[in-house]
Amino acid sequence: MNFQSDNQSSVFPEIINYLNIVNKNSSPAYGADKVTKLATNMLIELFETKLKVIYVSSGTAANSIALSSICPPYGGIFCSDNAHIGGDECGAPEFFTGGAKLLPVPTINALITERNLTKVINNYGLHGIHEVLPSAISLTQASELGTLYTPEDIHKITHLAKKHNLKSHMDGARFSNACASLNCTPAELTWKNGIDILSLGTTKNGTISCEAIIIFNQGIIDDIERRQKRTGHLWSKNKFIAGQIIKWLEDDNWINAAKKANAQAGTLRFLLNNIKNVTIKYPVDVNMVFASIPKKIQNLLKDKNVKFNPWYGSENLTRFVTSWDTKNSELKEFESIIKNI
Amino acid sequence: MNFQSDNQSSVFPEIINYLNIVNKNSSPAYGADKVTKLATNMLIELFETKLKVIYVSSGTAANSIALSSICPPYGGIFCSDNAHIGGDECGAPEFFTGGAKLLPVPTINALITERNLTKVINNYGLHGIHEVLPSAISLTQASELGTLYTPEDIHKITHLAKKHNLKSHMDGARFSNACASLNCTPAELTWKNGIDILSLGTTKNGTISCEAIIIFNQGIIDDIERRQKRTGHLWSKNKFIAGQIIKWLEDDNWINAAKKANAQAGTLRFLLNNIKNVTIKYPVDVNMVFASIPKKIQNLLKDKNVKFNPWYGSENLTRFVTSWDTKNSELKEFESIIKNI
Amino acid sequence: MNFQSDNQSSVFPEIINYLNIVNKNSSPAYGADKVTKLATNMLIELFETKLKVIYVSSGTAANSIALSSICPPYGGIFCSDNAHIGGDECGAPEFFTGGAKLLPVPTINALITERNLTKVINNYGLHGIHEVLPSAISLTQASELGTLYTPEDIHKITHLAKKHNLKSHMDGARFSNACASLNCTPAELTWKNGIDILSLGTTKNGTISCEAIIIFNQGIIDDIERRQKRTGHLWSKNKFIAGQIIKWLEDDNWINAAKKANAQAGTLRFLLNNIKNVTIKYPVDVNMVFASIPKKIQNLLKDKNVKFNPWYGSENLTRFVTSWDTKNSELKEFESIIKNI
Amino acid sequence: MNFQSDNQSSVFPEIINYLNIVNKNSSPAYGADKVTKLATNMLIELFETKLKVIYVSSGTAANSIALSSICPPYGGIFCSDNAHIGGDECGAPEFFTGGAKLLPVPTINALITERNLTKVINNYGLHGIHEVLPSAISLTQASELGTLYTPEDIHKITHLAKKHNLKSHMDGARFSNACASLNCTPAELTWKNGIDILSLGTTKNGTISCEAIIIFNQGIIDDIERRQKRTGHLWSKNKFIAGQIIKWLEDDNWINAAKKANAQAGTLRFLLNNIKNVTIKYPVDVNMVFASIPKKIQNLLKDKNVKFNPWYGSENLTRFVTSWDTKNSELKEFESIIKNI
Repeated sequence: MNFQSDNQSSVFPEIINYLNIVNKNSSPAYGADKVTKLATNMLIELFETKLKVIYVSSGTAANSIALSSICPPYGGIFCSDNAHIGGDECGAPEFFTGGAKLLPVPTINALITERNLTKVINNYGLHGIHEVLPSAISLTQASELGTLYTPEDIHKITHLAKKHNLKSHMDGARFSNACASLNCTPAELTWKNGIDILSLGTTKNGTISCEAIIIFNQGIIDDIERRQKRTGHLWSKNKFIAGQIIKWLEDDNWINAAKKANAQAGTLRFLLNNIKNVTIKYPVDVNMVFASIPKKIQNLLKDKNVKFNPWYGSENLTRFVTSWDTKNSELKEFESIIKNI
Repeated sequence: MNFQSDNQSSVFPEIINYLNIVNKNSSPAYGADKVTKLATNMLIELFETKLKVIYVSSGTAANSIALSSICPPYGGIFCSDNAHIGGDECGAPEFFTGGAKLLPVPTINALITERNLTKVINNYGLHGIHEVLPSAISLTQASELGTLYTPEDIHKITHLAKKHNLKSHMDGARFSNACASLNCTPAELTWKNGIDILSLGTTKNGTISCEAIIIFNQGIIDDIERRQKRTGHLWSKNKFIAGQIIKWLEDDNWINAAKKANAQAGTLRFLLNNIKNVTIKYPVDVNMVFASIPKKIQNLLKDKNVKFNPWYGSENLTRFVTSWDTKNSELKEFESIIKNI
Repeated sequence: MNFQSDNQSSVFPEIINYLNIVNKNSSPAYGADKVTKLATNMLIELFETKLKVIYVSSGTAANSIALSSICPPYGGIFCSDNAHIGGDECGAPEFFTGGAKLLPVPTINALITERNLTKVINNYGLHGIHEVLPSAISLTQASELGTLYTPEDIHKITHLAKKHNLKSHMDGARFSNACASLNCTPAELTWKNGIDILSLGTTKNGTISCEAIIIFNQGIIDDIERRQKRTGHLWSKNKFIAGQIIKWLEDDNWINAAKKANAQAGTLRFLLNNIKNVTIKYPVDVNMVFASIPKKIQNLLKDKNVKFNPWYGSENLTRFVTSWDTKNSELKEFESIIKNI
Repeated sequence: MNFQSDNQSSVFPEIINYLNIVNKNSSPAYGADKVTKLATNMLIELFETKLKVIYVSSGTAANSIALSSICPPYGGIFCSDNAHIGGDECGAPEFFTGGAKLLPVPTINALITERNLTKVINNYGLHGIHEVLPSAISLTQASELGTLYTPEDIHKITHLAKKHNLKSHMDGARFSNACASLNCTPAELTWKNGIDILSLGTTKNGTISCEAIIIFNQGIIDDIERRQKRTGHLWSKNKFIAGQIIKWLEDDNWINAAKKANAQAGTLRFLLNNIKNVTIKYPVDVNMVFASIPKKIQNLLKDKNVKFNPWYGSENLTRFVTSWDTKNSELKEFESIIKNI
């Protein structure tokens, strides 16, 4: 039983089969092919608006190319104090932007509040050009702790951002889980509420390696295609990356997979919560459960081959992640294991 | 008929089928899986030596991560005056290294000679720290013009490099074509003749998107895994990139594919050479033919749906590239077309 | 009366006179001159050890060149949560290092404690290469809040640093004030207690623009001269920057100036403390007084042409800085002003 | 006798005296002082137009900050194939811009011609986003070989540049020598003929360390003050750098000094030309003489303590540079030395 991360989950079989089909025809390189065009059109339909798409093969790349395109080297990006871009990308945003700074905002359950952002912004800038130029905010949806911004939350924050000339980025590594949980359309969670540019993650929810930078507000970016190229993120055989998204979107695969993952986390939350001395630490809005588990119980679980990750913050904190292919049988098995604890 | 680039060629079907198999099991992320281990072991066997492998999804990434790992920001890299890293990667080496300089060496048919490199090195450094520190050389094998370094050529150049404390990188975007044409082992074209680090291209010869950085001399690199991560080039589901190389290597697929591509170019060269007023410009050592073709004939070919690229240098210069899946029937058709010119 | 910053203070007249003398002879450029040699020898004598010196014209440059020379682009630098390098250099350390991260350590009165550093270090690294490589610590002496590390404090922290393979940098923008206050030799506050590299500030204490990077541990730096050159910080007429330090050191000018500045701050602290509703916020160890002053009183002071700066953290927080040329008469005048408040 | 470089020449004594005067008053830091304001106003008057000035202390800094402000990281800068920014700044432009490329243009006597630039531009861009985006041109006036662009030359080149959306930078390390030789106003050699931004050198012609970035076309730059700050090039006591330019400009000091330097080079050229087997290689338009001198004669000169530099390109090539304080007596002495060769 593996609850370490949704990035260890498998790929929708129809995606790989589709790559086989796509492979049958020769196509122009670097995204000038029909498969890429179709994928982009499907994304336009999904988001119900004009947009530009850049396909890359990691979330780190998507976030960093997006941010470097909206923040100058002497700029700053407000983000959650535990954002993935801050702690888990080995300085990629600093590297891609040419040295811009991430400006952490205190959060509640990993969520930036309008109030906290206002405070941080207002407390900023006393030293003029000795400080970086605030240029963007980045929201993580779902957050690193599996919590969610409502459309209203997003609106409030991007509204505040615009007032301060900040562009709004969303790190959507688990964007589908957010849509599923909030029962919102992709449009509602993004451009309809002020998001300018989105890193749309699909890898954690069933593709091989496809993260799409979705640009809603083309006026704010610079030459993002050259940024993609010079960071080594332009595939020659682009249809094999864009093609993944076609089958991901088709037949509502993406949202169904996210619903499944979320539901499994709900069950897992329930099961964990039943263990004595185990405490659930944060609302389980999507497919992650953070639980404080005494070391002794952690070891018992490990002995039974239950895999999960320790987490930052306190000694007993752990993270369990489900995915679209977390089996019911696995949860059953987990249930029987914890009965004997 | 498409002779624009081998990066438009299709993928070995067995590779995609293998991804389907690989997909069946859950695996740890970020390369800690068994598929990655197997791929690396197969590369160790192929190269007959200990080595470290970093899997990335573009040649630009492979070259730039490799170079940044062996050249400081204040360093310089000697390379061919028409190297891909200089003219076709939108400044990626400069970006990844933090601003190092490419120092072009005059070439004969795109090949650096010991003599020219000696001259450039000796003419360098008069201004001390006002100039960048020469730190590496980069050889392209096969070269941008489809010509080749013999093992002896490589030995001479890397020997000279070592004398000047330069590390030796090889851009092997078409490395298999070189092995096939020279009838040399991968070891002979690399570490046995002084290459420290290789960008091993496979995408142009039958994979989806797999370029492997092969590090022979681990003493010369710094924390290349962190460089891979912070440039966004570490896949979470790494088995899908490493897995490609398993089927690429198996059953000598790679070298057979390269032989086929080279042979087709030989035929194409012969056919082009037969057209009146067409001149073959460079030795056709691998799978590329550079031909000077009067515009009028170029247009006739285009009218017949023959695709090829214009090339730098003179108005009539063109490039034709074959690949492992250039069909005999295509060459037949081409033959019948040119008969009517 | 100007208490805004010691960087507004004047220059020792003997320094400018000395530049006149130095100007009489032609000299080789870029630091190969006798004046530079003399300055460096005087610094060797002052610090009682072998060392290498790089002369630059701003503290930002000194800090950033030093840090980039000891921390790779994928590295991290532990520093105070209110360090100058973090908040007042517009991202210079990130830029010079090629994107390294500053890792803030919680402080007490702006001082890093062994305990806090231990906690932060131990809480770090759970995510392997997804996090930057901890590479250095940077201590600010005197701190941004005018507090001080004792030699024992420094020893404890650098000892901990070495245990974790971290190099130790000191930002000594107000290093002379620290020496004066602690009655310690420069050696005791640096290499004798584990500091590898020091940004020695002199501009705030009587020179025009001379900040010296003092390298005690030459084994840890890379090609720092090329870093100096490529960041535009190598003066051609270097004797005019190094020459400043000669007269700064001569006749104990530097330490006497620092003592004077500290003493004036002591008086100022006393005077401010006497104002009703004014609270001194931090120990006044050097030449800075941080006082919480009701806005109304702040305005009264401003009306009397008393200049000081608002400070981060709370609405009423202010900073008063004295310098070597804060006149007794100014303090007298200040005394008479506050009597009438 | 020292003809190695004008950057070894001395400083106008009135400049150092003026710093003494300037030192008498306390002033706000970072350029908000009256001295800086006066200097800028004098530059406005000199150039007969509105402009913005950034004061830095090296030519490398001036060039690199200027270029980074007008060229994106994925951009390219056309420049002379022997430009100082290309060969003598240790990669500073690449570093400051975040990895932009210098695109060398073949030159005649180090001068870019309209014809050559046209050719290079037209031959560029075949590979779209795989190549950097041409963003600027940089002209060196006077050139590295001491030759000059006439106002008409400048106009033609900047006109061509504008047609291709390129911004026009001038590296004016020896700008005063150019004005003196061409008998042109600063305006004629810059904005009146299309230059957008100028690195105005003064250090080689009588100041301590003052290079001013002069921005004529403020619409083209981004937040250049933050670039200045984050590269460590903002002096806190800015009046001491800006102040230098006041006395440099006053009483036509600058142009008289340049005339003197040029005249001494004319004499030196005449004397060198009289030596048997010595050939003058380039037009002597300003204060530099490039001469091919047999090694034997070079050694004789060195024995007589005549200092000069070897130069790139051929074994016998040498460079002699005069300055505003090259004494007539030195030239007399040189004359007597060569009589005996």
